[in-house]
Amino acid sequence: MSELIAFQQPDQAVIERRPAIIADLAELLPEGCLITEERELVPFDTDAFVSYRRMPLAVVLPETTAQVAAVLKYCNDNAIPVIPRGAGTSLSGGAIPQEDAVVIGVSKMNRILEVDLPNRAAIVQAGVTNISISQAVDADGFFYAPDPSSQLACTIGGNIGMNSGGAHCLKYGVTTNNLMGVKMVMFDGSIVEIGGKALDAAGYDLLGLICGSEGQLGIVTEATVRLIAKPEGARPVLFGFESSVAAGACVTDIIGAGIIPVAIEFMDKPAIEICEAFAQAGYPMDVEALLIVEVEGSEAEMDAMLERIIEIARKHGVKTIKESQSATEAALIWKGRKSAFGATGRIADYICMDGTVPLGQLSHVLEKTSEIIDRYGLRVANVFHAGDGNMHPLILFDANDPEESLKAEMAGNDILKLCVDAGGCLTGEHGVGIEKRDLMRHQYSDVDLAQQMRVRAAFDPKWILNPSKVFPLDGRNGSQPGNQTVPETGKTAA
Amino acid sequence: MSELIAFQQPDQAVIERRPAIIADLAELLPEGCLITEERELVPFDTDAFVSYRRMPLAVVLPETTAQVAAVLKYCNDNAIPVIPRGAGTSLSGGAIPQEDAVVIGVSKMNRILEVDLPNRAAIVQAGVTNISISQAVDADGFFYAPDPSSQLACTIGGNIGMNSGGAHCLKYGVTTNNLMGVKMVMFDGSIVEIGGKALDAAGYDLLGLICGSEGQLGIVTEATVRLIAKPEGARPVLFGFESSVAAGACVTDIIGAGIIPVAIEFMDKPAIEICEAFAQAGYPMDVEALLIVEVEGSEAEMDAMLERIIEIARKHGVKTIKESQSATEAALIWKGRKSAFGATGRIADYICMDGTVPLGQLSHVLEKTSEIIDRYGLRVANVFHAGDGNMHPLILFDANDPEESLKAEMAGNDILKLCVDAGGCLTGEHGVGIEKRDLMRHQYSDVDLAQQMRVRAAFDPKWILNPSKVFPLDGRNGSQPGNQTVPETGKTAA
Repeated sequence: MSELIAFQQPDQAVIERRPAIIADLAELLPEGCLITEERELVPFDTDAFVSYRRMPLAVVLPETTAQVAAVLKYCNDNAIPVIPRGAGTSLSGGAIPQEDAVVIGVSKMNRILEVDLPNRAAIVQAGVTNISISQAVDADGFFYAPDPSSQLACTIGGNIGMNSGGAHCLKYGVTTNNLMGVKMVMFDGSIVEIGGKALDAAGYDLLGLICGSEGQLGIVTEATVRLIAKPEGARPVLFGFESSVAAGACVTDIIGAGIIPVAIEFMDKPAIEICEAFAQAGYPMDVEALLIVEVEGSEAEMDAMLERIIEIARKHGVKTIKESQSATEAALIWKGRKSAFGATGRIADYICMDGTVPLGQLSHVLEKTSEIIDRYGLRVANVFHAGDGNMHPLILFDANDPEESLKAEMAGNDILKLCVDAGGCLTGEHGVGIEKRDLMRHQYSDVDLAQQMRVRAAFDPKWILNPSKVFPLDGRNGSQPGNQTVPETGKTAA
Repeated sequence: MSELIAFQQPDQAVIERRPAIIADLAELLPEGCLITEERELVPFDTDAFVSYRRMPLAVVLPETTAQVAAVLKYCNDNAIPVIPRGAGTSLSGGAIPQEDAVVIGVSKMNRILEVDLPNRAAIVQAGVTNISISQAVDADGFFYAPDPSSQLACTIGGNIGMNSGGAHCLKYGVTTNNLMGVKMVMFDGSIVEIGGKALDAAGYDLLGLICGSEGQLGIVTEATVRLIAKPEGARPVLFGFESSVAAGACVTDIIGAGIIPVAIEFMDKPAIEICEAFAQAGYPMDVEALLIVEVEGSEAEMDAMLERIIEIARKHGVKTIKESQSATEAALIWKGRKSAFGATGRIADYICMDGTVPLGQLSHVLEKTSEIIDRYGLRVANVFHAGDGNMHPLILFDANDPEESLKAEMAGNDILKLCVDAGGCLTGEHGVGIEKRDLMRHQYSDVDLAQQMRVRAAFDPKWILNPSKVFPLDGRNGSQPGNQTVPETGKTAA
């Protein structure tokens, strides 16, 4: 990968104190919770964004909230950067460490503490995987709705950090809509509980603020999540179109008519070919774009909703309509879709963008994306959550070719700027992380960014929590960790 | 009313500068936007909480965001408290002014700026009434979901300030779930735009933080709200029970089974009698408690959901089941429920509590509420949003009897503490305002409150925005406006 994204210089003073810091951390933790050997640190030197690797000072894997608190207080007292880490599945580099940092991983805090069906809630530790919540309540007829493609591996802690989504979030909302409360360790080791099993909370909505704050406002150790009753039935249906523009316009019209299926996923021709070759999902190969529309409920409800959707699809010249005929067929359709990233990785290097646009802009943005990719002489596969306008162009390139790598990153930046200019935003579910940090200036004015940084400073006065992420390093924010000059209140530029 | 709630002493220095301040404000505003005559200020000296009255220094009614910005910057520069005001329908005293304050009302900013059906969004000014959004899109088959009982009068600006709910929020969520973006004036007159028509936003979720922040983080002047397609049909059904405990347990079991109707409203015997006498809604009079359960969708969908609900109700010994047979009958059922507060006001003085509890605690809290009311020798009518655990005990008393007034306030406090102790919270939709400010200590630890106050200080460093609300005045927060000592970061008590 090229180094379009400038990395912070580590604080040499912290690195030189390494033996003392390790000795201190060892005092705070039980046996087996501290990793300091270089070969054992390797699995923690990057995340699923992969483009950058940095070896942290140490990795701690606490077993309790109290241990997280002890380590975080120690790091804050000693101005040591801290990188919170779930399963390391971030696609925006949210969990990439830096050389002077201590990684706090939640992988040992992986117990479901309580399932409370009368209140439709579960209390889980932050290291619990996304899928295991649904598995724990499946027999009782419930599930946890947000379903990132990485749901077998990714943790609830990471989901909260990035406000993760998934294919079925069109109907049920993303993480923030399914999170009822958290237990969180603050920068100074104090422990707060926000929200809980009751609707709403008095005072400010700190729960919403924490969700999606990318580990910069504290470290979540427990979460109370909403459980939802499984529908009577669910049926994914394939709609094939002769152009991406027609498929995009069809999505706009379905949602514009006020119809909200469980999911509307979009795949263009390259994505169909890649996924079909991998999963033999039965996708039609003679179309230019495919929508997977899932409806759910009773047979009568599904039929009624499908009837309205088919009518709209016909107006956009739908070429193929194929309903899944069995649970096996339905599972195969989703397997194809959910393996899109993995299947693409088998044929080329790729970077996955995560822009979100107002639905009325879908066709326009698809067309312009095509133009951008052509201009750089690259290839793209589009496979994304169309129902909520969350686009995922996968830009294919050869990582061994530095020039092509640079072109891929530049094309990605152009596409994200296009999304912002169309009234959308830089990210739908992957977060800003390190990847989109410098593009925040395209999305936000100085006034906006200054306000976000003031909020951050109210939670993390020394900027030790995931310090190189989310905000641009250049200009007023300094170029060194700890040097970010937070604008004082009252002095923001207009 | 007794004065259980201590009022801040106004800043005499500000009051003495009154003529100069009025002259300065006149410079910033066009003709007809500044109110300073005492008799014209009277309508602004309280809100629907009514218990307290204070005459503000002046009321400004700007016509544009730029005028709001000019006034807010002036007040911040001169350390003058500012009270943002929608329609003054707050039930927690959120819009009650203080003698040294300038009220900024949004009533002249009452235009719907854009209806964008393909993106299911409307952009409205903050002074638009809640109902007028639904009216504007009704013919197109859409509506705006949150429906406070005051929806004919209350403004979107006020709804955002208090994160307002309503009977139909069980299915569709409260204001924060239906708000997509805001234009907001910051303390220093800078103008920010947060969110918009696309899903999610990069960086922190400031939109969620703003919603429900009771006018303390800025003044919202425009909002982008979500539009929802009207259902094919809707049918309220009355379920009569022999006890409040049975009705409460029935609600717990409906929601615990994962069934989410549009609304589940609860009325006890006194509430039924009061509402029926006022609205002749056809409520059964031979039961101790009534649930209004509304289902929606096609006839088949409604029948299917009702069948499951009736089965659960039978387990709890339901005595009467009555389905509305026509649109007129349905409207009458809702008229009875929505007039509960007004109808109660005709027979007695009352204060309305707004605690929220986990659903599994409904019956327990109803029983304990009864005990508290008996202990004080008062009467209570319970009429509330049972489906999301948002309780509204109306405590009846004689406002001309100082002892009974005090008892009513003390009983109210005991009930809210009961809600918190049951795992719930002080407010579901009315906000903390001035009413529940001192009870925040029962809900939150010092660490929690300190963190909320640090967030506030990041948005309003001089504490000029709605300064006497939300946070307790006593102890570490000082007892004078402007004297609140925000805990410095790093020094919170454990």
